[in-house]
Amino acid sequence: MCRWLAYAGEPIQLSKLILDTQNSLVAQSLNSPLGAETVNGDGFGVGWYPLDATAGSIPAMFHSIEPAWHDENLSEITHAIESPLFFAHVRAAAGPPIQQTNCHPFRHDNWLFMHNGSLAGMALVRRDLALAVAPEFFPLIRGTTDSEVLFYLALTLGLREDPVTAMAAAIRKVEEIGHAHGVEFPMQGTVAVSDGATVWAFRYSSQGRTRTLFHSVAMASLQQMYPDEERLRGFGLSARVIVSEPLTDLPGVFVEVPESTVAILEGGEYRHEPFLATVE
Amino acid sequence: MCRWLAYAGEPIQLSKLILDTQNSLVAQSLNSPLGAETVNGDGFGVGWYPLDATAGSIPAMFHSIEPAWHDENLSEITHAIESPLFFAHVRAAAGPPIQQTNCHPFRHDNWLFMHNGSLAGMALVRRDLALAVAPEFFPLIRGTTDSEVLFYLALTLGLREDPVTAMAAAIRKVEEIGHAHGVEFPMQGTVAVSDGATVWAFRYSSQGRTRTLFHSVAMASLQQMYPDEERLRGFGLSARVIVSEPLTDLPGVFVEVPESTVAILEGGEYRHEPFLATVE
Amino acid sequence: MCRWLAYAGEPIQLSKLILDTQNSLVAQSLNSPLGAETVNGDGFGVGWYPLDATAGSIPAMFHSIEPAWHDENLSEITHAIESPLFFAHVRAAAGPPIQQTNCHPFRHDNWLFMHNGSLAGMALVRRDLALAVAPEFFPLIRGTTDSEVLFYLALTLGLREDPVTAMAAAIRKVEEIGHAHGVEFPMQGTVAVSDGATVWAFRYSSQGRTRTLFHSVAMASLQQMYPDEERLRGFGLSARVIVSEPLTDLPGVFVEVPESTVAILEGGEYRHEPFLATVE
Amino acid sequence: MCRWLAYAGEPIQLSKLILDTQNSLVAQSLNSPLGAETVNGDGFGVGWYPLDATAGSIPAMFHSIEPAWHDENLSEITHAIESPLFFAHVRAAAGPPIQQTNCHPFRHDNWLFMHNGSLAGMALVRRDLALAVAPEFFPLIRGTTDSEVLFYLALTLGLREDPVTAMAAAIRKVEEIGHAHGVEFPMQGTVAVSDGATVWAFRYSSQGRTRTLFHSVAMASLQQMYPDEERLRGFGLSARVIVSEPLTDLPGVFVEVPESTVAILEGGEYRHEPFLATVE
Repeated sequence: MCRWLAYAGEPIQLSKLILDTQNSLVAQSLNSPLGAETVNGDGFGVGWYPLDATAGSIPAMFHSIEPAWHDENLSEITHAIESPLFFAHVRAAAGPPIQQTNCHPFRHDNWLFMHNGSLAGMALVRRDLALAVAPEFFPLIRGTTDSEVLFYLALTLGLREDPVTAMAAAIRKVEEIGHAHGVEFPMQGTVAVSDGATVWAFRYSSQGRTRTLFHSVAMASLQQMYPDEERLRGFGLSARVIVSEPLTDLPGVFVEVPESTVAILEGGEYRHEPFLATVE
Repeated sequence: MCRWLAYAGEPIQLSKLILDTQNSLVAQSLNSPLGAETVNGDGFGVGWYPLDATAGSIPAMFHSIEPAWHDENLSEITHAIESPLFFAHVRAAAGPPIQQTNCHPFRHDNWLFMHNGSLAGMALVRRDLALAVAPEFFPLIRGTTDSEVLFYLALTLGLREDPVTAMAAAIRKVEEIGHAHGVEFPMQGTVAVSDGATVWAFRYSSQGRTRTLFHSVAMASLQQMYPDEERLRGFGLSARVIVSEPLTDLPGVFVEVPESTVAILEGGEYRHEPFLATVE
Repeated sequence: MCRWLAYAGEPIQLSKLILDTQNSLVAQSLNSPLGAETVNGDGFGVGWYPLDATAGSIPAMFHSIEPAWHDENLSEITHAIESPLFFAHVRAAAGPPIQQTNCHPFRHDNWLFMHNGSLAGMALVRRDLALAVAPEFFPLIRGTTDSEVLFYLALTLGLREDPVTAMAAAIRKVEEIGHAHGVEFPMQGTVAVSDGATVWAFRYSSQGRTRTLFHSVAMASLQQMYPDEERLRGFGLSARVIVSEPLTDLPGVFVEVPESTVAILEGGEYRHEPFLATVE
Repeated sequence: MCRWLAYAGEPIQLSKLILDTQNSLVAQSLNSPLGAETVNGDGFGVGWYPLDATAGSIPAMFHSIEPAWHDENLSEITHAIESPLFFAHVRAAAGPPIQQTNCHPFRHDNWLFMHNGSLAGMALVRRDLALAVAPEFFPLIRGTTDSEVLFYLALTLGLREDPVTAMAAAIRKVEEIGHAHGVEFPMQGTVAVSDGATVWAFRYSSQGRTRTLFHSVAMASLQQMYPDEERLRGFGLSARVIVSEPLTDLPGVFVEVPESTVAILEGGEYRHEPFLATVE
């Protein structure tokens, strides 16, 4: 439905990945060859942690319902701000209204959340999903996307204590409610979550055919592979990106994250683990 | 919180009441002396029935989050369109986001609904109110206002069959849920509802101190009182307005609707009846 | 740069061509295979004459900077309004800001004007073009597009008296100023103009390689060709469309307007004549 | 017409003056008792220089046409960003369209410019003013305000070399053109200009009755006057504000800038000089 990127590493200008690369997120908003839709013009959002971010730091956000490709505020702000950890998202709406409260990322305290995909049969399951959200979180839901409900469901189920276990429980709950309403494949998508220090990126769908997800290779290797490559300048050795589709066609820069996997950026390192994988 | 007007009568240009009178709704958006807030700049909406409207006709709507006073589309559209029954509303938001889906009037099939006021303690009661909405209506809630929940609660409780009884039941439900959460005065406001032929306007608050509401006097009387008055030209003999505050300071044109009252415009006639009035 | 359509004939709902056909203008805003750009998401506009329009009637307009494909107001308004003569335009901006005053069509008194294409070297020629606009029109320029300047240049040169001669003079002026600044091919594009009764559509570029333009075949012929075709229902015998690219892939419905041609819809008839054609 | 503030001093969060004071600029957007209009809801803008700003640094900008009082992006951005020199402006439009390109401040290279007031008889003088702008600046005019034309006129007349002399020459040009068109009092308003290091604020009107302008007293004096005042915490000893109307009602904090005066903030010091004052 959408395209997103998550960056962690040395502080960089947000624009470096959002606007200024060959296949930047904004370029993808006009043309994303690997996307379910090729145009993502239904609003966008950026969430960024401060320069001295640690786990617990509160991120700032910018949301707009104008298409990203001509938004002057987006250009101004992403050039003016540097951050060591940020999310950016361009939206292709399936149904819910185009409004700032439906733009990702979503925020709760120090947590950011964004999603590419959908919960199937939303009209059928919406009420039961909302009821599964804890009463203290219910009034905090500000928009009408399936994604935001998934975020508050994960918060209900312990996201702040154990993100991987809570996301697994939230998705299982989505599948349980979906199946109860006759939805064959309730969950689809890639999700990114951060607390200010770590990024968790989940790739999972009930059908086992999830939207694409990629991570960048370690910068040290890249600079060895491409010693003269201008486009790699300005990135520190900890710089890592997880993204819906590659930001460049330089071979070897981006590697696909497997199905049913959680990818983790932490302390300048990338690792991944199985997530809701079925043993056969 | 807001200002609204409801018109029924011979078809007129929408602009005649929304823009072109001395104290038009748009003038009130910048300065409404009787309002809880004097500026109503947080979006507006217009809903209108077609020229040949009868009970059951589907109204059209225009919503915008720009302040009404400089909106060129509002001026173009309200000058271009004539209607025998329309609602208009300017918003002063208490809390929920400024977005088109939070602009009144709301629509369900042939029904329009708008509200000036608030449900108190919304963060406390929001979830229980949402649960009181019938499951088939729940996924149709598109915004995040208390007003839209009240509309779907009234639909749940039979608005389409008996508007007055259903509105009474919906407000009693609001009061019941509010009291259960320790809210002293849960309901506040004036509400207008139409099915395409009749307008019902309710003035009620749990505290008995409701936002103002006025209705216009019969046009035949007005033209007798003011035979030379330019401002009354162009209105037919059935023209009637119900409105948060008078659209003109011509003495005798507008009369206050009492507390705990439902005012009804039907077949060119105005009448009112007690509504949720307590016998003392 | 953009896509547009002009309709004249029996009054129809605007939505019938703007939203509800297979390859409607809004569908083209997301994907226009014949366009210089395939996405036209930088605002749109509709201008329509009233039901009883004659030469001299004042049209109404609706402009928005949101992408057309999800705009709820566009859907509401174009379903609610019928017109015997209307223009619609979706924009892919080359440079000037995305704002309502840069959305086509433009209006002056009873005249509507819209353009697909560009005046080359605008930064070089902008001042001289502005100076060529008559002083009484200069303060009426509200946006910053080359197209609006071309409109006021044509008004300066007699558009209201003789549209074809004035458009030719305006384009010659554009070419003269462009050449003086070293611009090789100053004019590119298709232009539509109406006075409320007649539509003039111009296809011309200095290079002789103009953006595409098509007109629909007489409805009588179409209904004979396709007696059972559902999509032709609801159109009267005078219905005619001129459009940047065909609204349907039904063979034979749309015919290309030649280069260097003015196409004219008048009294239910289509005709065309050479326009600025060079004899070789 | 509008309200503005200019800050220079130790870097502070933009929100500290724009949102968080008693009578902050955003509070003034809803209610500015000293303003020609009391509601300034027709868009706003912020321009800020980077943390290490010197003369020549390029400022960033954020403009929006939504009313400032509920704009969530404004709140996010002004809390996230610190700056040693920034401008903020809320607009009450007299006439030109509400669009981002008409929001102040305006920028050219490292220069910011904003204005409260108007050039009288704009429809009469607009063309001559535009012609007085140097051809190289003419295509850079992006909006349709009188204020932006005044900025480019000042740039034409040497703003970058000598701001005070150039502003005087620009205003004299405005008066000369105005008088030639029969406008009695062509210039009205307060103007702020900066190059990244110094702020020049001009108060002048042809009639000698200019919109209000105030400057804050030296922070050292204020902290002596109000040793326990919470509201003065967090400001450094160089902090200075020039503003359309006081941001607080603490007596003695703000002092009026006289008529026909240029006020200057430079190196943490405030001074002012006569500007276009007539000797009598």
